[in-house]
Amino acid sequence: MINVAIIGAAGLSGLELIHLFQKHPHVELKVLTSRKYDGQPLAEHFPQFTGMPHVFSSHEADVSKCDVAFLAIPNKASLAMVPKLLSEGIRVIDLSGAYRLRNPDVFEEFYQFSHTEPNLLAEAVFGLPEYFKKAIPSARLVSNPGCYATGALLGLLPFGNLLSTLDRPPVIDAKSGVSGAGGRVEDDSIIYVGVNENFKAYKIFQHQHLPEIQQYFEDLTAYDAQQQGNLIFTPHLLPLTRGILSTIYLHFSDALSVEQVRANFGRTAEQNPFFHLLPEAQFPDLSTVQHSNRCHVGLAHDQSRTNWIVITALDNLVKGASGQAIQNMNLMFNCEETRGLM
Amino acid sequence: MINVAIIGAAGLSGLELIHLFQKHPHVELKVLTSRKYDGQPLAEHFPQFTGMPHVFSSHEADVSKCDVAFLAIPNKASLAMVPKLLSEGIRVIDLSGAYRLRNPDVFEEFYQFSHTEPNLLAEAVFGLPEYFKKAIPSARLVSNPGCYATGALLGLLPFGNLLSTLDRPPVIDAKSGVSGAGGRVEDDSIIYVGVNENFKAYKIFQHQHLPEIQQYFEDLTAYDAQQQGNLIFTPHLLPLTRGILSTIYLHFSDALSVEQVRANFGRTAEQNPFFHLLPEAQFPDLSTVQHSNRCHVGLAHDQSRTNWIVITALDNLVKGASGQAIQNMNLMFNCEETRGLM
Amino acid sequence: MINVAIIGAAGLSGLELIHLFQKHPHVELKVLTSRKYDGQPLAEHFPQFTGMPHVFSSHEADVSKCDVAFLAIPNKASLAMVPKLLSEGIRVIDLSGAYRLRNPDVFEEFYQFSHTEPNLLAEAVFGLPEYFKKAIPSARLVSNPGCYATGALLGLLPFGNLLSTLDRPPVIDAKSGVSGAGGRVEDDSIIYVGVNENFKAYKIFQHQHLPEIQQYFEDLTAYDAQQQGNLIFTPHLLPLTRGILSTIYLHFSDALSVEQVRANFGRTAEQNPFFHLLPEAQFPDLSTVQHSNRCHVGLAHDQSRTNWIVITALDNLVKGASGQAIQNMNLMFNCEETRGLM
Amino acid sequence: MINVAIIGAAGLSGLELIHLFQKHPHVELKVLTSRKYDGQPLAEHFPQFTGMPHVFSSHEADVSKCDVAFLAIPNKASLAMVPKLLSEGIRVIDLSGAYRLRNPDVFEEFYQFSHTEPNLLAEAVFGLPEYFKKAIPSARLVSNPGCYATGALLGLLPFGNLLSTLDRPPVIDAKSGVSGAGGRVEDDSIIYVGVNENFKAYKIFQHQHLPEIQQYFEDLTAYDAQQQGNLIFTPHLLPLTRGILSTIYLHFSDALSVEQVRANFGRTAEQNPFFHLLPEAQFPDLSTVQHSNRCHVGLAHDQSRTNWIVITALDNLVKGASGQAIQNMNLMFNCEETRGLM
Repeated sequence: MINVAIIGAAGLSGLELIHLFQKHPHVELKVLTSRKYDGQPLAEHFPQFTGMPHVFSSHEADVSKCDVAFLAIPNKASLAMVPKLLSEGIRVIDLSGAYRLRNPDVFEEFYQFSHTEPNLLAEAVFGLPEYFKKAIPSARLVSNPGCYATGALLGLLPFGNLLSTLDRPPVIDAKSGVSGAGGRVEDDSIIYVGVNENFKAYKIFQHQHLPEIQQYFEDLTAYDAQQQGNLIFTPHLLPLTRGILSTIYLHFSDALSVEQVRANFGRTAEQNPFFHLLPEAQFPDLSTVQHSNRCHVGLAHDQSRTNWIVITALDNLVKGASGQAIQNMNLMFNCEETRGLM
Repeated sequence: MINVAIIGAAGLSGLELIHLFQKHPHVELKVLTSRKYDGQPLAEHFPQFTGMPHVFSSHEADVSKCDVAFLAIPNKASLAMVPKLLSEGIRVIDLSGAYRLRNPDVFEEFYQFSHTEPNLLAEAVFGLPEYFKKAIPSARLVSNPGCYATGALLGLLPFGNLLSTLDRPPVIDAKSGVSGAGGRVEDDSIIYVGVNENFKAYKIFQHQHLPEIQQYFEDLTAYDAQQQGNLIFTPHLLPLTRGILSTIYLHFSDALSVEQVRANFGRTAEQNPFFHLLPEAQFPDLSTVQHSNRCHVGLAHDQSRTNWIVITALDNLVKGASGQAIQNMNLMFNCEETRGLM
Repeated sequence: MINVAIIGAAGLSGLELIHLFQKHPHVELKVLTSRKYDGQPLAEHFPQFTGMPHVFSSHEADVSKCDVAFLAIPNKASLAMVPKLLSEGIRVIDLSGAYRLRNPDVFEEFYQFSHTEPNLLAEAVFGLPEYFKKAIPSARLVSNPGCYATGALLGLLPFGNLLSTLDRPPVIDAKSGVSGAGGRVEDDSIIYVGVNENFKAYKIFQHQHLPEIQQYFEDLTAYDAQQQGNLIFTPHLLPLTRGILSTIYLHFSDALSVEQVRANFGRTAEQNPFFHLLPEAQFPDLSTVQHSNRCHVGLAHDQSRTNWIVITALDNLVKGASGQAIQNMNLMFNCEETRGLM
Repeated sequence: MINVAIIGAAGLSGLELIHLFQKHPHVELKVLTSRKYDGQPLAEHFPQFTGMPHVFSSHEADVSKCDVAFLAIPNKASLAMVPKLLSEGIRVIDLSGAYRLRNPDVFEEFYQFSHTEPNLLAEAVFGLPEYFKKAIPSARLVSNPGCYATGALLGLLPFGNLLSTLDRPPVIDAKSGVSGAGGRVEDDSIIYVGVNENFKAYKIFQHQHLPEIQQYFEDLTAYDAQQQGNLIFTPHLLPLTRGILSTIYLHFSDALSVEQVRANFGRTAEQNPFFHLLPEAQFPDLSTVQHSNRCHVGLAHDQSRTNWIVITALDNLVKGASGQAIQNMNLMFNCEETRGLM
């Protein structure tokens, strides 16, 4: 059994972890922390967990008996807690953004704080299993990708070597349900009457997932943003609870072969149980990925085959957060990658 | 008084026309046709019109006493009815797509029918008042723009002379509420359980508003699609009833001056009562345009000022259909442009 | 012209008042107060009011030049402000609950405060025009009814003399959209992810509109709650923005005559422009009353004609708040009752 | 292994059965029928089932190798198919309403067809495990309860012997999500723009679940509708996909003991794994039962303790249909009652 602590268990990502772990045969939930519900039974406040005997404890709970801690807390809280847990020998899967970028300076601009742990930034493994399956098993600290970054990178990277003829920065037009905002009252944008029957873009040219997308796009391809231009990424807020759909626009200098593009994406699908390429002329929607850890991908091109549109869809709380975190845990603890997630 | 017929009065656009005309002091609704409700009182089936004495008549109703007919019927029905009405001396505002393109051949590809009235295609005036205010007043036949085309063109055309340095095709990522689909059961996409909590793209590279956007973009600017590439346009279906938000991506070969861009858009706003440029750093949403005839526009650029994002928002049933149709009628009948629409 | 102040103009009811006043020919909006936006232009924060030049002022603004003040602020703030305004000779329409009950003691139980103005409680006129049309014109202080109370009383009172054979307390099962909660973050129940795709009852046997319903039901009929039992009222929260639908169950000791029941309701409709009785076998929904000041009413009975169900529907922000407030103002200032509301 | 056929597998209940069976270790899905998708792979049309190899067959498929058939087809189709399947020795769980009532005459009034199988009506066991746990295991034909009936009966019957002092017919005010309508285009009420932001009652005094509720309420208690009056049941349509919440009003001639009421409901909960009584002062909502087979129950009373309100919540596609059907299958095939459903 893997002994697990969830730090921040009463937030949306924490509750989703609890929900998913109900089906995981090799996990024992040892510690569930919540400032707000410290000392209170889980099932009393969240009747969807009727029958589970767990009780919330404080953030300062003793997690020393745990093998791994999932951090589902705000960025700055994660920043401080990660080194403590690692020093006690507990492996960490951090769902916050605190350890996702290599360059500490970028945190100032996009996260509004100074990073205090440059060494851990260098050590952290980016928990996108489709591209870091070798490094994750031995990682002490896995930085779980942002939900938008997961949808964008899984639409871009499978092009593989074909990206060498990409002649413009990709445009990523992404649309997320409200649970991506974390369910906290940070601003009016999550109040019901502000979101219902409404739709808007936000943080244009400024969202904190942009540097994350760009860093790994540059790391894993020959793309050079300084030469070729920064990626364009615009998030929007959908009037629904769960799901991110990303419409990604690419232009290549030469016509691509449809067969080759589909072959590259197909290879990604073969090697990755949660990456699903839809048949030609089919495109993903949110309803068929909600509550699953899958990312569905559809491909379109115009007659010139130089213009391509990739559409990816995933559940921001599952493949975009808690499901992917469990997928990472499975890899770290030598379980089957899909355990508890199918 | 202007004597008005609404052909197809019981559809979503027809009902919106009736709703808006309640506030128009110079209009008398003479004829409301509906196949389904022929002979039945309006207010009985649509209690929101309680107090109005009108009765539906058949599509073959005598409209000869009317000054103008609004056609809110399917494309092929409009195609056939327009010449009949014109021959009786009745001016027509056609809300369908049947007369929006100049080239009859394009109808085959995007509308799946052969056009039978090439002369009327040449005569029809495109009812986008912001750009055809001179031609509309004397038009016999106004072809009311598509809802997506209105949102796209009002985001692109105000750049004016600055478009000469546009060095790539604009990308238009548009998201529409369900009433854009006309409220008819054409396919599963408007069944509640298929739309609610869902989101998806549709008709990728194939939507019938694409040639309309491209035709008027080429007509009114120096852009040449054959040289510079076709515009990219992707419509999506939002889980809400009303509104279209279009996120438009442009790249210019040189940095644009923010002042000049805002001056150009500002001029469009000054000259057009329903075009509203939001202050810097503000962006439109759907809730503030629903039930109004306004189009709200926001502008963003990156640090290089070569990448620009324009976001436009409008109500697809008002500025995208019935409100714009009344705006056109006002211009045709020498009323104030805003009459009945403020 | 009637010079108007709106106190609390940036809340949902305040914004609805501004919206409705745009169509009122005899009103000049002199003062719009908002703590949050003091000194800032209305149209900047609320682009739906583009073109209006008004600027928010503080709650302490000079309203002495106004003829009437609409209070759209919390109960305790209204409690304190009403006597001040009246002492300056300004008439008041209070949209809060602070002056709706005659018995000061009941405020302790249902509103959690001690009432300090028993004399004004005695003076205040209940602003339900359908039943207080004689008293409203001369009132200094009109207490605008609660949204639930409006829907319940307009379903019950039109029975008139037939209520003498009512042999059980009516059961009122009411369902309201979220804007009834005022748009303030009072609790989780208005956070998007807590309301969307969800439904629940709240304040069972405890809602503050219950004593208001009961007081006026007893005042205007021979019903005696002490003898016949308290009314049963259960509010529920619907996942939508606007509207209240109330399903009201009544049982009479003898079979009622359908003709007589419909005659009584029909009389109410004839005398009241915003009360609309639907034809037999038709029942109201929310979509046909949203954004209107009408209350739609449907009647059903079982075969015995001793069991009756009345269903009423209204827009909680219009007939349930701001529209009804303007209806009251019209009566107070000798305007036509429907002015600005049709 | 239990060999299973799902007749009508591509409807909402059929798809939910497939979804739930993914987690059932003792079931093999042998036959999935669909008129519309005959011969086509499940996962192609329903990408949420990616990885499942099943192919739809026609309704005339050979189900003779199956142990049990789940019928998720319209009432009249079920009526005809049940005797055929039984004659082949296949046990049947019928999710339609065709075999739910004992009296064939009632079908004429509420289902608009003449019943042709009175003997099977007498044989069919009502599949509400909380009350028919003894009869279900040996049944050839289980008639799965209606979704509304499940919510109503689980709120009423646990009162047990206390119902002897019930002195009026219970009032059941029920609100259902749209998937209860079956996802078929039967009428406008399931078109998106007709349901979204809307709410209404329907089939007042006429819904086909009323005789089902009344029959089993009379069977299992001393209540006599002829003497005491018919139950009152009003269904409403909620603008959401899944869930039914029923607010049930009861009046007793004498004050009930809170302890005794809670003891009776508690006993039901102890004996039934999917019946969950919430703590005092807590009430159910839909979000905590969606996608689960649980029915959550909350209890309230006024100061007199003669007026009681019971609120039940369940997922109409799970406990109200497919989950309950699997619960019945577990009992019929000697599996643990909760197998595949926790």
